[in-house]
Amino acid sequence: MDQTQGRPQAVIVGAGFGGMEVASALARAPVDVTIIDRHNHHTFQPLLYQVATAALSAPDIAWPIRSILRKQENARVVMADVTGVDVAKRVVQAGPVEIPYDFLVLATGAMHSYFGHDEWEDAAPGLKSIDDALEVRRRILLAFERAEVVDNPAERHRLLTFVIVGGGPTGVEMAGAIAEIAQHTLRSDFRRIDPRAARIVLVEAGPRILPTFPERLSTYAQRSLERMGVEVKTDSLVTECRKDGVVLKNGRIGCDTIIWAAGVKASPAAQWIGAEADRAGRIKVGPQLEVPGRPEIFAIGDTAVLADPAALPIPGIAPAAKQMGKYVGRLIAARVAGSKITNYFAYRHFLDLATVGRKSAVVRRGRLQLTGYLGWWFWGIAHIYFLIGVRNRFVVALNWFWSYVTFQRGARVITER
Amino acid sequence: MDQTQGRPQAVIVGAGFGGMEVASALARAPVDVTIIDRHNHHTFQPLLYQVATAALSAPDIAWPIRSILRKQENARVVMADVTGVDVAKRVVQAGPVEIPYDFLVLATGAMHSYFGHDEWEDAAPGLKSIDDALEVRRRILLAFERAEVVDNPAERHRLLTFVIVGGGPTGVEMAGAIAEIAQHTLRSDFRRIDPRAARIVLVEAGPRILPTFPERLSTYAQRSLERMGVEVKTDSLVTECRKDGVVLKNGRIGCDTIIWAAGVKASPAAQWIGAEADRAGRIKVGPQLEVPGRPEIFAIGDTAVLADPAALPIPGIAPAAKQMGKYVGRLIAARVAGSKITNYFAYRHFLDLATVGRKSAVVRRGRLQLTGYLGWWFWGIAHIYFLIGVRNRFVVALNWFWSYVTFQRGARVITER
Repeated sequence: MDQTQGRPQAVIVGAGFGGMEVASALARAPVDVTIIDRHNHHTFQPLLYQVATAALSAPDIAWPIRSILRKQENARVVMADVTGVDVAKRVVQAGPVEIPYDFLVLATGAMHSYFGHDEWEDAAPGLKSIDDALEVRRRILLAFERAEVVDNPAERHRLLTFVIVGGGPTGVEMAGAIAEIAQHTLRSDFRRIDPRAARIVLVEAGPRILPTFPERLSTYAQRSLERMGVEVKTDSLVTECRKDGVVLKNGRIGCDTIIWAAGVKASPAAQWIGAEADRAGRIKVGPQLEVPGRPEIFAIGDTAVLADPAALPIPGIAPAAKQMGKYVGRLIAARVAGSKITNYFAYRHFLDLATVGRKSAVVRRGRLQLTGYLGWWFWGIAHIYFLIGVRNRFVVALNWFWSYVTFQRGARVITER
Repeated sequence: MDQTQGRPQAVIVGAGFGGMEVASALARAPVDVTIIDRHNHHTFQPLLYQVATAALSAPDIAWPIRSILRKQENARVVMADVTGVDVAKRVVQAGPVEIPYDFLVLATGAMHSYFGHDEWEDAAPGLKSIDDALEVRRRILLAFERAEVVDNPAERHRLLTFVIVGGGPTGVEMAGAIAEIAQHTLRSDFRRIDPRAARIVLVEAGPRILPTFPERLSTYAQRSLERMGVEVKTDSLVTECRKDGVVLKNGRIGCDTIIWAAGVKASPAAQWIGAEADRAGRIKVGPQLEVPGRPEIFAIGDTAVLADPAALPIPGIAPAAKQMGKYVGRLIAARVAGSKITNYFAYRHFLDLATVGRKSAVVRRGRLQLTGYLGWWFWGIAHIYFLIGVRNRFVVALNWFWSYVTFQRGARVITER
């Protein structure tokens, strides 16, 4: 238990894609690695929407952090809520527990941002954790159940209206998946309502969905969604989310289920260390991802933004967080070894991916643009490949194959809130 | 929607093993079947302990009631909490909704009984629903996580002590599964604690565990558990369950996790209809499972007890509920058709089954008694076979095989309460 004495302590807060990558880059370094997370599991966030739409079980895409790091003997895992950092004493505070560090990596990720309207969260949950996904699943499935017993047609219509706020990849994926549930999965399951009558609205404040993709792919995705029965409303800023519906700049939609996929902000890590942050709360880091004036503290992934105003923005996606994590892990390993890494962090963008329902996806890689069936296969294989653990890959593949063949979804269990 | 006009209405409350069997026995009868349940899913209760011990995901053993009945056109499913029955008006009340019946089957099952000490429930949750199982899973996994960060050795010991109250099949299965988690699954996952040091205590008030089995099998199960590191305490009546431990008639055990597998009582169905019940709350039914004086109301499964004091007791297990369900379904179908079934309900007992960890089970069928490896295979095949749905069978089999080969458990996700 005390082989730790004397060795440098590297503490990582957050076991997302970035944090896990730092830990693994330090596997052979003569340091003790402590990774702290509030959950016991690493979550494969890109597939959260599939848990939310009952295609996958929570354990299919969440894997105990301890399991992943079992064989890395210099790593320990602490499940705790970090409450602050004492930068003078160099300790991370997790309630009464203090964890000393020589190197600190803040990889705490992002949370939903309601643009100053946190009171909307109750009516419009987002999709950042397994618990969020289970809550959204519960709401979607319950809406159909309630519609089946209600006698008032207006109320039934409201219960069967689903609004997704935000036309990025998550919003597009959710809208497509809910359309599929209504059109196919639940088709013959009810006696009084026809699930196919469900109204699914994707609301985007800007002029087009998937704004980071080439315009051709945005248009393609919108047409695909419309063919599946999704209403796409662009140029529609949300001005209020309420229990009974959404108020837009240009109208109002009565609904029971709102899913928030519109904005994120960084976790409060900047406040813990008193660092300068941008408007989204991300810590402004130097070219080596270090916190200015604190060379022993780094921020990566959604917690960080390059301070250099001339730097190209790094997207808030898993591969970016992983690249940053690997870079910082190597940097710490080099420093501990007494050598130095002089090159700056450089982000390499591989591809943009979004799926639109069960047979269609849009993919951009450099000049290559894939749509439709081919894009969907590319998307599916890429996601299964990156899932941690052989078993998970296999179960997810099996679940998908099963859903694909039968239109059934295997995880339609409503659990308590 | 109104093909229902004029046809007799058969209403079933509860979609457990009994209720589902009634519905399916009525598939070809000229009646409208309504099945009401507070959950959207039918639960395969015999495997709940595997969800509680992270071997299976909740959706592996829970299947939407609507899916099961999708093709039965005369059946509709209502997800609602039944609040009462108006026997004069012949309607089931579910809050503001009233569902009229010509035949009513009460199949509402059992819930935990704390022998008049309902205040113990918080400290000692039981295992009757998916939500219960997820809560127990959360507690078991969190206890290890907390023990890892605690510095006080006495508190660490308390966190690593697990007490299972009740030596029936569920208690035996839980104790064996927790021992397996501590001995194998988590073995290399922690750095400060040794999960193998966990203390697992199975507490039974009577003189031996598995009291409904032959004595030889009880002895065998106890020895198997002890070899796995479980302490078995017989003749140990629990007099109090508290946050910090269990008080026994003959001692006290400090612990963080208590699992209640000791007693059940019937749901309040007897009160809804003002029927006579036994001490466990079960409705006293006639030889055709009808409620005396109410030939249109039946009670089955854990909700019912034969009024005839000379009748052999029917055990509270799935096959018994299914047999009763089938009998009542056929009785109603016959009555609707104008014919009559004159034979009384007769329970046929096939076998007693309990598993004790990963390579051992006890099985009795008539004179045949199986133990050990052979018993375990028998148990596994029987359970997979009876799971509803081909996909579930396959996923469960795969998960088991995986756990068996690797000692890993695929569902170690702690979700929020």
